[in-house]
Amino acid sequence: MTITKSAVTAVPVHELIAERWSPRAFNSHAVSQDQIHALLEAARWAPSSYNLQPWRFIVWNRDDNADTFDKVYATLSSSNKAWVANVPVLIGVFADRRGVDGQENGAAAYDTGAAAFSLVLQAQALGLHAHQLGGFNRSELQREFAIPDDIVVQALIAVGYQGDEALLRDDLRAKEQAARSRRSLNEIAFTGQWGHAF
Amino acid sequence: MTITKSAVTAVPVHELIAERWSPRAFNSHAVSQDQIHALLEAARWAPSSYNLQPWRFIVWNRDDNADTFDKVYATLSSSNKAWVANVPVLIGVFADRRGVDGQENGAAAYDTGAAAFSLVLQAQALGLHAHQLGGFNRSELQREFAIPDDIVVQALIAVGYQGDEALLRDDLRAKEQAARSRRSLNEIAFTGQWGHAF
Repeated sequence: MTITKSAVTAVPVHELIAERWSPRAFNSHAVSQDQIHALLEAARWAPSSYNLQPWRFIVWNRDDNADTFDKVYATLSSSNKAWVANVPVLIGVFADRRGVDGQENGAAAYDTGAAAFSLVLQAQALGLHAHQLGGFNRSELQREFAIPDDIVVQALIAVGYQGDEALLRDDLRAKEQAARSRRSLNEIAFTGQWGHAF
Repeated sequence: MTITKSAVTAVPVHELIAERWSPRAFNSHAVSQDQIHALLEAARWAPSSYNLQPWRFIVWNRDDNADTFDKVYATLSSSNKAWVANVPVLIGVFADRRGVDGQENGAAAYDTGAAAFSLVLQAQALGLHAHQLGGFNRSELQREFAIPDDIVVQALIAVGYQGDEALLRDDLRAKEQAARSRRSLNEIAFTGQWGHAF
């Protein structure tokens, strides 16, 4: 069986946002090139400061090239290796830090986070799931794939179809079954002044 | 009349993503507290590294408190002042840089960008428009509202209903009527290796 985890909200939010979550149980069904294309298009149309579009992506598709996929897989933390073992596609997310007139783009990470989230929501729209992860060796990835110095490695996104959580390692299955949790709204949202709860 | 600007994509993407854009023509119709609540809930449920949820928001609602709204407005660049003059709500976006065990959260800006984009898409879902802007005096805002040192000012988001672009200043109306543009996909998306176009 597969788990669904709709966000518990005091007022309704759009289903694409409410239903999105980050599973660890994936099966190995392939993701098509058209689907990946749609994910990248969704990212491409995100907004950015001065329309600089600092986001860059590398697609590693196990079906397409198992060798390069394995090189990325090798950079993962052992905990991530356990659940990514089945995942068919990993997408590297990078931010170009070069801004206008040779200055640093101060919004590079912020805007790239938006583009990656757009990609994740498009996965949700296609019946796929996407799970962003930071637990990997960034410098190893940067070296292994000759990522230029001006480019910051931000995250990896695992993309595929949700699988059976019964097949997960025990500790990961416990996480999979736990309820989604967030800080209460009054911790993160204020009115008029810093600290005045919304 | 109001302008629509659907993204031109080679493969379909979800309408919430395709139809979103950042207008400058807003009217002064009020945004309800329930609508603002939904925007914040959408942001709240974004994903984040270690579920740290670094995003923070301050809502400045002109209808609610014109004085504090005006203080934010005063920090805007003159070009932004011109079109924000009608906007009923500004939302400040902040990132808490504190991570685990006293370390810096390296994903704070990236994750906050995702949460802000979730907010923007929820505005789209409610028939509102949201336009993020970086052209304001960050240090003035930080001082005026006593934002703590651990908190990074990321952006402001103008939220309201789309207005008549005929009322915009000439240079801004030209921007409003221009087609949306993005880098081509092969500039931002690679397969397997850095620089190998998708």
